[in-house]
Order: sequence, then C-alpha cells, then structure tokens
Amino acid sequence: MTTEQPEQPDQLSPRLPETPRTRHTRLKAQGSLHRPHLDAILDAGFICHLGVLIDDHPVVIPTVYGRDETNLYLHGSVASRSLAANPDASVCVTVTHVDGLVLARSVFEHGVNYRSAMIHGVPRKITDPDEKLEGLRVLTEHVTPGQWDYARRPDRRELAATTLLALSLEEASVKTSSGPPEDGEGPDAELPVWAGNLPLTWSWGTPAADPQLAPGIPLPPHIAGFNRPYA
Amino acid sequence: MTTEQPEQPDQLSPRLPETPRTRHTRLKAQGSLHRPHLDAILDAGFICHLGVLIDDHPVVIPTVYGRDETNLYLHGSVASRSLAANPDASVCVTVTHVDGLVLARSVFEHGVNYRSAMIHGVPRKITDPDEKLEGLRVLTEHVTPGQWDYARRPDRRELAATTLLALSLEEASVKTSSGPPEDGEGPDAELPVWAGNLPLTWSWGTPAADPQLAPGIPLPPHIAGFNRPYA
Repeated sequence: MTTEQPEQPDQLSPRLPETPRTRHTRLKAQGSLHRPHLDAILDAGFICHLGVLIDDHPVVIPTVYGRDETNLYLHGSVASRSLAANPDASVCVTVTHVDGLVLARSVFEHGVNYRSAMIHGVPRKITDPDEKLEGLRVLTEHVTPGQWDYARRPDRRELAATTLLALSLEEASVKTSSGPPEDGEGPDAELPVWAGNLPLTWSWGTPAADPQLAPGIPLPPHIAGFNRPYA
Repeated sequence: MTTEQPEQPDQLSPRLPETPRTRHTRLKAQGSLHRPHLDAILDAGFICHLGVLIDDHPVVIPTVYGRDETNLYLHGSVASRSLAANPDASVCVTVTHVDGLVLARSVFEHGVNYRSAMIHGVPRKITDPDEKLEGLRVLTEHVTPGQWDYARRPDRRELAATTLLALSLEEASVKTSSGPPEDGEGPDAELPVWAGNLPLTWSWGTPAADPQLAPGIPLPPHIAGFNRPYA
C-alpha cells in the first residue's frame, strides 16, 4: 500500500486532532484528519481489526462494529479480558476497504488502492443496561439496518451475556490511496508494459433462507432490498 | 462474529502446534490448527492487518503480504520501526475474509460468517539482497500472479529502499464461521421472523488502463484473465 495520491484541499470539517499517534509521518499525502472522511470509511464497513495487548503481545482480532457521533461500539470478550488486566491500556481499531490493485510498469511501484481508518483510545466497558441496549441498537442498525425493529431484541439474560465496549472516535486518522500507477511520467513509461488498475468490487448475493425457517414467513422488504454498503 | 459451527473431523495434516496464543479458548468449535486451513485462508487474500507495539501501544496496520511454505512476507516500514526499538517483540498478523451476514430470529444470535487466520511471531527483517529479491518475488506473485515475469523487477536502489519482513508461519491458528443461524431449533423458531444468510461476494472489475499508457501496449493475458481469488 505504497501508492500516493495528490493531497486533498483542507476544506472538510470538523478536523480531528493531530496527536503523536494520528500524525501522518509517512506518505503524508494519503493522510486525512477530517471527521467526515473518518465517518465515510466507518459507515462503508462493519468489520474492524481490533489490536489489544494480551500478556504484553499485540493480538489483532476481527470483530463487528457500529458507530454513532461519539463512539465506536464493539463486541469485546477478548478485548474485555485485556481491559480487565490493563484498564488504562489503549487499543487500536483499524477498518480497511480494499478498492483494487495498482499495476505499475515496475514491481516497485505496484500497490493497492484502499481506504483505511485507525482509531486509538482506551475503550470503556459498558455496564449500564440502558446504555448497553442503546449501544447494541447502534451496532445492530449499523451492520444490518432494519433488524433492530424486526428481530427479537436482547432480553435481560442476553444483555448480561454481551460484552460491549465503547471507544471514543476522538483520536483517529484516515489513510487512502486511489488512482492510477505513478510511473507513467518517469523513465519506465517507455517500457512496453501495460499499467493500470484492477478494481475490486463486492456485492450482496441473494438472501438464503435458513433451512429450518418455518413455512409462510416472508422475506421482509429491508432484507429483500438489502443494500448496505460494504467496502 | 459469534456463530459457532460443528467441529470438523481432525483429519487434515500437518497440524500446527498448540501454544498459549493459538489455543482456542473461546468457541472452540470454530478453531482449527490445520496447516491446510491456514494456507487456504492466506491464499484467498493479500491484505493482512499487522499488529505491532509502538511506544507500548498496539497499532494495527493494513498491509499486503505473500507467503511460501515457511514464511509470510510483509512490507514493513512501520513494523520495522517497532522492530528496531524491540527486536524481540512479537507481532500478530490477522487475515480475515467476510463471507456474509447471519440474520437470526433474535438480535443476540446475529453474526458474521467469516474465515480468519492469526499468526504470531517475531518477524525477521530480510537484509540479504538475494533473499529479499526472492521474498519480493513471492509477495508479488502472491498478490498479482504473472507480474514478476512481466513488469520491471526491482533494481538495486529499489531493493535497498524496500523493507521486507519474514514472519514464520509456525505459530498460527484459524477461526471460521459458516452456515445458517442457530436459533432455528430453540423457542425463537416460533417467531414470525425471517432468518437466513446474506452472502457477500467479490469480483474483479474490468482492468482500467493508466490514462498515461503509451498507445499500442496490449493488455497481457494474465491481467485480461485475472482471477486471483479475493476473500
């Protein structure tokens, strides 16, 4: 992921704070601290990679997330274990969407087009049942819009059995790469080598009913027309 | 990602060693320590999330990878910085493929079908030029089969400017989840709620030539017919 792109005009606000962890030290042109960029990347996905420390080693766990204006919400049994051992330890959450491959004339200039967000902070374990229910609503509606009002909501026992973490969106940054390869203007442009992009696209397949689904239950419109973006 | 699946017969070999970090302590039925499972997941993708410690905080970086029988190869300028500060610090690499959403009758049983691999170890920075060239060949051919023999290979300067890490595949584990929702046999099966799967699929779009591509350069067959799996 080494392809640079021209710096974007600094016109989107609000701006996220620059900290030692969000400052872009490398390939600066790819970086953004604009909150709308962050939101767009988070809203385009629902799987993040959560980095926590366990026994002093980093462990990276894929997990679902949702967000509101303030927080990212995560299921977090492993993170919760880490958190119990180190209540003040920060975690890192990364969300990445791969947009395609960049095929340059030289192997060195090959790259990947992507959008990626990174959030740092000390997560908070949500214990208040009302707040947990609201966090689960946010998470559920983020991943599968329409399901919170359609499926059976968590009961008290299920709520107690769910570990939900809130991570502030305050310390975050974005990196993206897009566009064609960059060796079209150097000496390699003379090479008889095809260069360009291989875009990667995703799509939702046809909903597949549970083989155990009772007869006569129709596919609800919000699933039949499911078009939640992914990547 | 909480959906369990029936345990698979323990018939695939070789088996990866069980260590405190690869032992599946949670939802054991989803875990696998079979090397062929690991290889299949690694071969289905080319982007991993690399967790390293920087200033005692976990940082999770998306990056491309390739593999051979022994190692995962990663571009690693950030990891290399971390490695320089802590030469014996282990990293964690996670590769995740999202196969779809599992819509259950209850919010609690909702989940994601996925395949995921996690590798732990102390990466080694490759310094020998021949070994680095071979590692870059493995990485390039893993991501874009056919490009190593087609594009211009790295020259001495480019080779020196590339940080390549090797991470042994020895300590690794796999987790997967597949199949329909699991509340089709409990009391929730009586609810008038549709349940099933929303599959997510990937495809490569049409190759898009670099606008600066010189005229008369044909699309090579290995790109025209690009079908490298993704997820």
